Amino acid sequence: MVKRLIAHLSHVELLTPKFSDSLWFFKDLLGLTVVEKTERSAYLRAWGEFYSPYGVKLTENDSSGLGHVSWRADSEQDMMGLSTSLQKENNPAWTDGDYGHGKALEFKGPDGHKNEVFWEQSKPRVSDDLKSRFRSRSMKIPNSAVPVKRIDHCTVYSSNVSVDKEFYKGIGFKHNEGMFSTKENREISAFMTVTGQCHDLGIIYDMSGAKGRLNHVAYYLENSGTWMQAVDIFTEYGVTVETGPLRHGVTDSLGMYVLEPGGNRVELFNGGYLNFSPRDDWTPIMWNAEEDAKYVWSWGAVPETLFFYGTPPTKDTQFRQSFNPMGQKTAKLI
Amino acid sequence: MVKRLIAHLSHVELLTPKFSDSLWFFKDLLGLTVVEKTERSAYLRAWGEFYSPYGVKLTENDSSGLGHVSWRADSEQDMMGLSTSLQKENNPAWTDGDYGHGKALEFKGPDGHKNEVFWEQSKPRVSDDLKSRFRSRSMKIPNSAVPVKRIDHCTVYSSNVSVDKEFYKGIGFKHNEGMFSTKENREISAFMTVTGQCHDLGIIYDMSGAKGRLNHVAYYLENSGTWMQAVDIFTEYGVTVETGPLRHGVTDSLGMYVLEPGGNRVELFNGGYLNFSPRDDWTPIMWNAEEDAKYVWSWGAVPETLFFYGTPPTKDTQFRQSFNPMGQKTAKLI
Amino acid sequence: MVKRLIAHLSHVELLTPKFSDSLWFFKDLLGLTVVEKTERSAYLRAWGEFYSPYGVKLTENDSSGLGHVSWRADSEQDMMGLSTSLQKENNPAWTDGDYGHGKALEFKGPDGHKNEVFWEQSKPRVSDDLKSRFRSRSMKIPNSAVPVKRIDHCTVYSSNVSVDKEFYKGIGFKHNEGMFSTKENREISAFMTVTGQCHDLGIIYDMSGAKGRLNHVAYYLENSGTWMQAVDIFTEYGVTVETGPLRHGVTDSLGMYVLEPGGNRVELFNGGYLNFSPRDDWTPIMWNAEEDAKYVWSWGAVPETLFFYGTPPTKDTQFRQSFNPMGQKTAKLI
Amino acid sequence: MVKRLIAHLSHVELLTPKFSDSLWFFKDLLGLTVVEKTERSAYLRAWGEFYSPYGVKLTENDSSGLGHVSWRADSEQDMMGLSTSLQKENNPAWTDGDYGHGKALEFKGPDGHKNEVFWEQSKPRVSDDLKSRFRSRSMKIPNSAVPVKRIDHCTVYSSNVSVDKEFYKGIGFKHNEGMFSTKENREISAFMTVTGQCHDLGIIYDMSGAKGRLNHVAYYLENSGTWMQAVDIFTEYGVTVETGPLRHGVTDSLGMYVLEPGGNRVELFNGGYLNFSPRDDWTPIMWNAEEDAKYVWSWGAVPETLFFYGTPPTKDTQFRQSFNPMGQKTAKLI
Repeated sequence: MVKRLIAHLSHVELLTPKFSDSLWFFKDLLGLTVVEKTERSAYLRAWGEFYSPYGVKLTENDSSGLGHVSWRADSEQDMMGLSTSLQKENNPAWTDGDYGHGKALEFKGPDGHKNEVFWEQSKPRVSDDLKSRFRSRSMKIPNSAVPVKRIDHCTVYSSNVSVDKEFYKGIGFKHNEGMFSTKENREISAFMTVTGQCHDLGIIYDMSGAKGRLNHVAYYLENSGTWMQAVDIFTEYGVTVETGPLRHGVTDSLGMYVLEPGGNRVELFNGGYLNFSPRDDWTPIMWNAEEDAKYVWSWGAVPETLFFYGTPPTKDTQFRQSFNPMGQKTAKLI
Repeated sequence: MVKRLIAHLSHVELLTPKFSDSLWFFKDLLGLTVVEKTERSAYLRAWGEFYSPYGVKLTENDSSGLGHVSWRADSEQDMMGLSTSLQKENNPAWTDGDYGHGKALEFKGPDGHKNEVFWEQSKPRVSDDLKSRFRSRSMKIPNSAVPVKRIDHCTVYSSNVSVDKEFYKGIGFKHNEGMFSTKENREISAFMTVTGQCHDLGIIYDMSGAKGRLNHVAYYLENSGTWMQAVDIFTEYGVTVETGPLRHGVTDSLGMYVLEPGGNRVELFNGGYLNFSPRDDWTPIMWNAEEDAKYVWSWGAVPETLFFYGTPPTKDTQFRQSFNPMGQKTAKLI
Repeated sequence: MVKRLIAHLSHVELLTPKFSDSLWFFKDLLGLTVVEKTERSAYLRAWGEFYSPYGVKLTENDSSGLGHVSWRADSEQDMMGLSTSLQKENNPAWTDGDYGHGKALEFKGPDGHKNEVFWEQSKPRVSDDLKSRFRSRSMKIPNSAVPVKRIDHCTVYSSNVSVDKEFYKGIGFKHNEGMFSTKENREISAFMTVTGQCHDLGIIYDMSGAKGRLNHVAYYLENSGTWMQAVDIFTEYGVTVETGPLRHGVTDSLGMYVLEPGGNRVELFNGGYLNFSPRDDWTPIMWNAEEDAKYVWSWGAVPETLFFYGTPPTKDTQFRQSFNPMGQKTAKLI
Repeated sequence: MVKRLIAHLSHVELLTPKFSDSLWFFKDLLGLTVVEKTERSAYLRAWGEFYSPYGVKLTENDSSGLGHVSWRADSEQDMMGLSTSLQKENNPAWTDGDYGHGKALEFKGPDGHKNEVFWEQSKPRVSDDLKSRFRSRSMKIPNSAVPVKRIDHCTVYSSNVSVDKEFYKGIGFKHNEGMFSTKENREISAFMTVTGQCHDLGIIYDMSGAKGRLNHVAYYLENSGTWMQAVDIFTEYGVTVETGPLRHGVTDSLGMYVLEPGGNRVELFNGGYLNFSPRDDWTPIMWNAEEDAKYVWSWGAVPETLFFYGTPPTKDTQFRQSFNPMGQKTAKLI
């Protein structure tokens, strides 16, 4: 039995080749607040991030994709313990920390995704004019159409889902659910958690052959009734809506995908089960890719971009990604 | 200037080859009440149909499709006046009426769709156990997941939209909005109303070459927040969801399409503008099929079935319609 | 039988002693656009007002209350006809018009409320950056939390509901619904329409003895799922929420009341029946104030301010209205 | 530092003097499924209870109120460890278990509320006709208007909140949030959790002087957009709606209270924060009853019954509770 070493997801660093457009998307459309800025990065907090200093760090870069995923340890000892359990191939190393948190243990997952785990952090602060009248909020709900509440999870592509899954299990994640393809004799996806959420980390098979790519980062939108308005706003303001509201069978959640101007896929997320069953008494829910495909994503048409597009885009998907916002695309109904 | 001759849509007769399954759909899933039954037909009322005796008449038949569309005249004189203005090719004829209404003037539109107009009607009644506590409702809201409020409109396919449009304008309809294809040099759709609604009658170009077919009948779902639940229920209970919630640019409404077990397309509908501008001072909003396609239906993927499937299905679409509920389909993103 | 003389509500002029605060409310919170400004007035249009130049004219004034209610005639002849049918006590007079419309026939209703009816109007225009991608919208949906779609209706207080009701019936309104108090032997409210809406004009008994006061002006909020977000935003930004979301039994609609900073009550409105029954074949739905009280407004607690507060406030209600935003108030549960 | 001993809330036993009416409420209105029945009890599961056999046990009794609260241990060792840490005054005792779980450690909290903790449990099963097409659901979503997803939390009244809070902290609960009254120099409420939820157990000061009473049990309603429909249905079917939808400032959640026919208060619940901050690094959010009152429950009027009504009712509240469903009540606006 492995103890819980990590308490929760803290933030995700996103890389963008269109920094100011991406910043507009997160700030003006999702209603996030810039709590810190450096030359090449902005740190953005949502109104419901009350115990964590920010949920996304946006960094200017040649291409889109994932910078790193940042986790808070469950205690200082847990962070230290983790440092001794990592292998050489994970390239563990200590950094001095960053805005909002102290020294951090950096390491790579099997497919090359950069992670960090830290213990010390500063409390979320806010200027007086942004203070909420509600003590349970880190700040006012912004007066925007899609006021996301908090970062929810990060989903990566992996060239080998099974290997990644085992690695994360080894550092304390619970394997809630997944999908297996009989035809390909391969795990297609794995949904991993360190909390009670259906997943804090999603892992999806990357058929492009690339490594270390990002599938998407997800924000929780508190009120599912707001989604109709959200999609209208994205459409009016020229953001590519990859799918309207849909039901994910896996994790039993509501989701909707858009592409932020830098190209990274962003999910609006709501629902999804909570699973507080003891970790070592849990048998993962397993779907079969061939038998169950039609319930994995339901509600009508699903564009085929969902199955291969990620960031940074590969040559192949770059070509196929020649879809401009709202341009013609082909899709498959599942 | 033509006076308003017709007050509003009264009901639509739907033909179904799977009578009991279709009845289950309308009664158990949409929450309608059977207010009258004959050997081959059921008359179904929604809780919000408070000035009309029922909204759908369901009739057993060899194939699916439209029986007739029934309208209430604005007065008895209007009904009589209408009878004199119809042409021989419309086959006008008087019938004795049906459950809920008196004698009716029957006639065919240019593409062969059967219409009727009546004046006398009986008030909607309800048994005591179904009586609402609200005087403004014809009966209790049913305790079901998708409690549609009232029939909203009927949309037909036509082999010549322009001809149909002119005919209905001639009997008092207002032409609110439409679409023209420059490439095909043809009107693609026309949205016609006798009330303030964005459309009581939709007309869409039928590229199959067939005549007199039905595109869909639409029910108004009062609370747009209920849609997430509606789609879940349809999916759980095996109803084919052709699209999840989407935004219609044309008529600026929310829609969602399912196929009832008999094969007829049924829309859940919400929003849509009201246009109370004087009829003879209104210039139709015209969309261009080539330039505006991406906003006609928005929010991600649209299945290509939307462009050709209707009832009764043609040989071609029957073939293509080999999609079982939830089976594989191809789709186009717009 | 009286012909329909008036086509629809065009706009309402609201008076406010706190002009800039009221402007902030309508512009920043409700997402309206200022389409014209004069020294003491602002003209505000919502994104869904596509056939009317604006819905509210906000005018600086010593006290709050109603400036006038403005209606569009169904034709020029109807406007001229109306001018001959008004009585001396209605003080009919022609004005030169105002921003967005031509010459208007001004007159007073029995309780002193100022109305105007005009025919000529200019089309709603919008600057290029506010243009919607949807041809069916007058402009982009604003990126704000409570993006109301269009003005819906105006509800006035009257010292004698029956007299007012008869006057408006005389100029073409349909009496959809109302309430009678057996105990007081008096009509308590009347809901009048010139369109198919449940009401374009509400009339409520004013027990204060004052004349010509405003009860509220209502905006339609398209998506009822947005309401949870709307109330949160109003609360965060210090706007007095008089009631959260509730069901009006009368008119069977969803409503929510807030006070704009100038003191005028503003309703967010959704649903409500459409009644397209021919006007001269309609018997009003009548509620009894004593028997039906609990269903007139339902869903828990109703503050007693609903029964007496209006603008301009009377001495008595001013006293009672000493409630600051969010201050202590007493209420009655119905 | 105390380890987490309890994994999650398993079920709540509710006592009802109107067994068949209460059963109708939970089964027909909330859409729960009876998974087991004994002479005096019914065991009810919601569609989203996929790792727990049921969420409510309903038991016939002379009066309403709480039977017991049942928790699952985090492991067998944790259950055994807990047994040694309880005091004599808690009356710890082993029972043989009940439908769905094995032997349980029973004990009383300081105010007299009965709890139990067990380890062994059986998996939720379901008959074939109720099986969902989704592997992540324990059964089909029911086709009812208010299909609650899962039990969320239980809130008890206590004659001494501080004492109760300390007791539950001692057996592994985290103190997320609470309220203190400066005027009364007393803790008014405490929100305790063993998971990441804002609370699994609420404790509210009982000013009646009674002990061991129930404030309410809460069900999670997945889709907040469904609430408008929920309230309509409750109203139509004669269930007492104590409040419509409202915002709880404390726990930042959406709530709505109704009384089931047996008299117990039932909450529909949505949102509420998740707090995955490490337990021993958390400082509770503390509200001040006098300063913050207006944001504790917001959105208009709050009935004063919220401050004293509980089950079993006291003589005093029985008297005041003479409100029949939908009868006249007095309320206070906060």
